[in-house]
Amino acid sequence: MKPRVFLGIDIGGTNIELAVVGIRGRLLAQDTVETRPNDGPVNAFARIGERVSSLVGGSRDVEAAGVGCAGLVDFGRGKLLSSPNLPTWRNTALSRIARRHLGVYTVVDNDANAAAFGEYKRGVGRGARSFVCITLGTGVGGSIILDGRVLRGRKNYAGEIGHMTISERGPLCKCGNRGCLEAYVGADALVRSAMKKLRRGSGSLLWRWIRDQKRAASPRLIAEAAKKRDAAARAVFDEAGAHLGTAMASLINVFNPDVIAVAGRVAAAFSLMERSMWDTIHERAFAEAVGVVAIQRGGLGKSAAAIGAALLARQAVRERADDPRGG
Amino acid sequence: MKPRVFLGIDIGGTNIELAVVGIRGRLLAQDTVETRPNDGPVNAFARIGERVSSLVGGSRDVEAAGVGCAGLVDFGRGKLLSSPNLPTWRNTALSRIARRHLGVYTVVDNDANAAAFGEYKRGVGRGARSFVCITLGTGVGGSIILDGRVLRGRKNYAGEIGHMTISERGPLCKCGNRGCLEAYVGADALVRSAMKKLRRGSGSLLWRWIRDQKRAASPRLIAEAAKKRDAAARAVFDEAGAHLGTAMASLINVFNPDVIAVAGRVAAAFSLMERSMWDTIHERAFAEAVGVVAIQRGGLGKSAAAIGAALLARQAVRERADDPRGG
Repeated sequence: MKPRVFLGIDIGGTNIELAVVGIRGRLLAQDTVETRPNDGPVNAFARIGERVSSLVGGSRDVEAAGVGCAGLVDFGRGKLLSSPNLPTWRNTALSRIARRHLGVYTVVDNDANAAAFGEYKRGVGRGARSFVCITLGTGVGGSIILDGRVLRGRKNYAGEIGHMTISERGPLCKCGNRGCLEAYVGADALVRSAMKKLRRGSGSLLWRWIRDQKRAASPRLIAEAAKKRDAAARAVFDEAGAHLGTAMASLINVFNPDVIAVAGRVAAAFSLMERSMWDTIHERAFAEAVGVVAIQRGGLGKSAAAIGAALLARQAVRERADDPRGG
Repeated sequence: MKPRVFLGIDIGGTNIELAVVGIRGRLLAQDTVETRPNDGPVNAFARIGERVSSLVGGSRDVEAAGVGCAGLVDFGRGKLLSSPNLPTWRNTALSRIARRHLGVYTVVDNDANAAAFGEYKRGVGRGARSFVCITLGTGVGGSIILDGRVLRGRKNYAGEIGHMTISERGPLCKCGNRGCLEAYVGADALVRSAMKKLRRGSGSLLWRWIRDQKRAASPRLIAEAAKKRDAAARAVFDEAGAHLGTAMASLINVFNPDVIAVAGRVAAAFSLMERSMWDTIHERAFAEAVGVVAIQRGGLGKSAAAIGAALLARQAVRERADDPRGG
């Protein structure tokens, strides 16, 4: 019998990240294919299928696959209900399409759960009993892993950390609510905060980059300026860090976690937010619970969700087999 | 062999509630003894011990006991670290004292966990996979039960729902933080809110009760006035309900629970808060998750923590025996 491996598929709006993980959870291979969202999910999985055999190699067998995808996922049915990155893929039975093109049992989950599970098994969450992962990007997502299992809640909608209210009368969020964490630290909020500061002050490096050099304002550009000690750019991340700290303080009081990870694209700016984040946490959370929590930037970078999706497939297979070794 | 039963002990600042629960979790008997906190925990447990034999009856054997107590509890060691109601009982090894006077294995937990477990097993949380219980009183406590187990976190400090931030610049809380749920809906906050409204308006029924009849302002009195359609008193609970709804919306987005219970002394006013609470939840939480949650007043009243403590003892004994039937 050939060694069994698990395939992880993280579907983004532009690229699909692939990861192959062994029976013991070790990362064996990685690849990237284009999403081409307008070609539809069937074509995307056909292209993934073409790539798999060379990625896995003839000496191994794929036992199961895991798909991570931004958006609302019906976990039980393996269906993507809606996704901000893939608007035309509404109500798509991804697990069925994947099964057809890959020939294996496939689980589908949202990308925040997949990324968190990756960090929990192979990244900064290793060994944690109570692990919270916050993903910072255009949206702010999250996932909680307790005793080795993703917290799903009644219908798999749990983990929407980005839509915890941190100020009842705060700014409007895209979800329609006011004062969500995402309305303070999502990518759009960071850019808005920077533009507001720039309109007030002048002489900023960031201002020169955006106005004179016509560079597009983005969290990455703001972080670049902050790293060059630009005051306005630093203030953007100081303030964002404080708001992130408020949400983390609530999570610490409610979950008493041993590890919180900050993942996602904007996590590259984690070090710029760290000081104000910790200041706020010390102000707001119980010292006993603060004393046991480590807060770290995720360790797997953009591979987290693909690796985590493969590991979720591995866990699902073990549970289907009712393997007493567990996930 | 005599039938085995479990004893639950809920230690409050004034009274200790006792409950006896059978092997199948049925409530068999209840009693109340005075706490007399200044006489110390040893005397309190001696008095409990004297009461137990008549409560349990000669035809049954107590197999284990559970203690619920407000405050910070070291669950692993069975120790009460500190308690707002029992300031002189600091660092007390309650499980050891209980064992000496009752002669049985004893688990110690905080009263919010005990009350939640009672509601989960015998009250409004029955059958829930994901259950959140909020206790409203002088303090605002909470506990989360997932797949039949209390969410404890790394060191058993989880569940501090009363100290989630709902407004970063909100009023000061006794914990030192600003804008905690407790600073809006704790008993003191309700009284403060009423007094503020009364100073502004006049002719209120509540105003006459407090100023002319010298009745003490309390959540109970405000609720009494609200039930007689006093406008100021109604406004107090409308506003509190909206803040409670904000916290619940965050909990719904993070846990996707199937049941939320509102327990504790101030839960008697739940019906007065219900409308504004639901309005806020619909505004703030994801419709998919709101659609599956039931929110109800706790069904066990002031017995919840004593019953729950007995049931926690039962669960602990089963786990020690590694009984596959579980808790």
